Amino acid sequence: MDAIATYALRLGDDSLILGQRLGEWCGHAPALEVDLSLANVALDQVGQATHFLALAGEIEGKGRDGDKLAFHRDVMDFTNCLLVEQPNGDFAQTIARQFLFSHYQELLFAALMASKDARFAAIAAKAVKEVTYHATLASDWVVRLGDGTEESRARMVEGLEWMWRFADELFAMDDVDAAAFAAGVGVDKAALREPWDQRIDAVLADATLERPAARRPVLGGRSGRHSEHLGHLLSDMQFLQRAYPGATW
Amino acid sequence: MDAIATYALRLGDDSLILGQRLGEWCGHAPALEVDLSLANVALDQVGQATHFLALAGEIEGKGRDGDKLAFHRDVMDFTNCLLVEQPNGDFAQTIARQFLFSHYQELLFAALMASKDARFAAIAAKAVKEVTYHATLASDWVVRLGDGTEESRARMVEGLEWMWRFADELFAMDDVDAAAFAAGVGVDKAALREPWDQRIDAVLADATLERPAARRPVLGGRSGRHSEHLGHLLSDMQFLQRAYPGATW
Repeated sequence: MDAIATYALRLGDDSLILGQRLGEWCGHAPALEVDLSLANVALDQVGQATHFLALAGEIEGKGRDGDKLAFHRDVMDFTNCLLVEQPNGDFAQTIARQFLFSHYQELLFAALMASKDARFAAIAAKAVKEVTYHATLASDWVVRLGDGTEESRARMVEGLEWMWRFADELFAMDDVDAAAFAAGVGVDKAALREPWDQRIDAVLADATLERPAARRPVLGGRSGRHSEHLGHLLSDMQFLQRAYPGATW
Repeated sequence: MDAIATYALRLGDDSLILGQRLGEWCGHAPALEVDLSLANVALDQVGQATHFLALAGEIEGKGRDGDKLAFHRDVMDFTNCLLVEQPNGDFAQTIARQFLFSHYQELLFAALMASKDARFAAIAAKAVKEVTYHATLASDWVVRLGDGTEESRARMVEGLEWMWRFADELFAMDDVDAAAFAAGVGVDKAALREPWDQRIDAVLADATLERPAARRPVLGGRSGRHSEHLGHLLSDMQFLQRAYPGATW
């Protein structure tokens, strides 16, 4: 795949894997309202994934459609960031992941709307409204849990501790990102870091929480070096298509 | 619970259990498009459930809210019809269940919009738009699978065979239904049978499928006599709330 196709693939993979993770909450959330809101976020993410993956397949031009890319790639060919594949854990851990990622996604899609490639710009323009809501939802929960009971606060702190080391990867620029940016198609993700930090810090202050201590960042998702968690997710997600290729019954 | 509260509970239970069942497809559907559409239907159903269950709790007046009714009742206290608790099986079986139920729900909610109780009428007015779409979606799939390959047709026939014996219960009127209808709150479900039959037959004709042979109907869901399938569904759905009552972390 060339850089622009890979760029679309990465955007699609981030949304697809996060959507799958959130879908695991379906019917297991602690309250009906939570079940509904997580399912709504999951749906938005899978919807974004279908658009970006279809675009990746179109740019690649080898006849792979979104389903082919979602269901017939091996774990090492997935290009999602490590943050989105992290396990749900408890609700606070899920919210921590969503909080860090949705603010990134909101800044990213807002910038991507200015892409010279109208296809990227159009998907971003639709998706930015969705992820703005996700960021608000997750921020509200961070405050509610962080500034809540002793138990909920402890769990929120633990959730943020878990997810924090995967934040740096969101803003890392490699050759693909640089090429997409140079072509006027992609976003300078490094420039998103400062506004992201400001947003995160403001919410954490509201939640009376400390920003987790800096950690050695964990990278590698973009080049296919994933945690074991992704393998389990994919074997679950891809089972039906792998067992019965192309079947829809 | 009095008849009107029970009537709301039944409507809520039908939607809740169907929503949970459909949620089991999350991330396991045969294609991204299917995953999205089943998840959308699941969301609509759980949304309807939250409204009807909250109303049931309100009419009961004993301080039980929708979450309490969803997560803290035993299997024998669930009043859903047996159709919605049937296992997903393959995609064709899921579609068969959805097809029979959504056409019923569409006719039911269209009639319920005329309820003298404005609360029932309001929920029905919102929900009827949702279930009209579900009925169309399911009908399209019945035709696509029924009039498709030999394999998809055989599976669609099997799916309809499985679900057919649970259709009569949808239209059965017991004391609760009669009381709700007499009070001008509920619907005469028996009167929905004929238009339902016409709709089902028209779609089956399009799908080049025969109507399954009449069976001895299986009843009992409304009075808590459920299949073993519901117990498994509830233990899964209620685990978190039972283990950690009231927790949202």
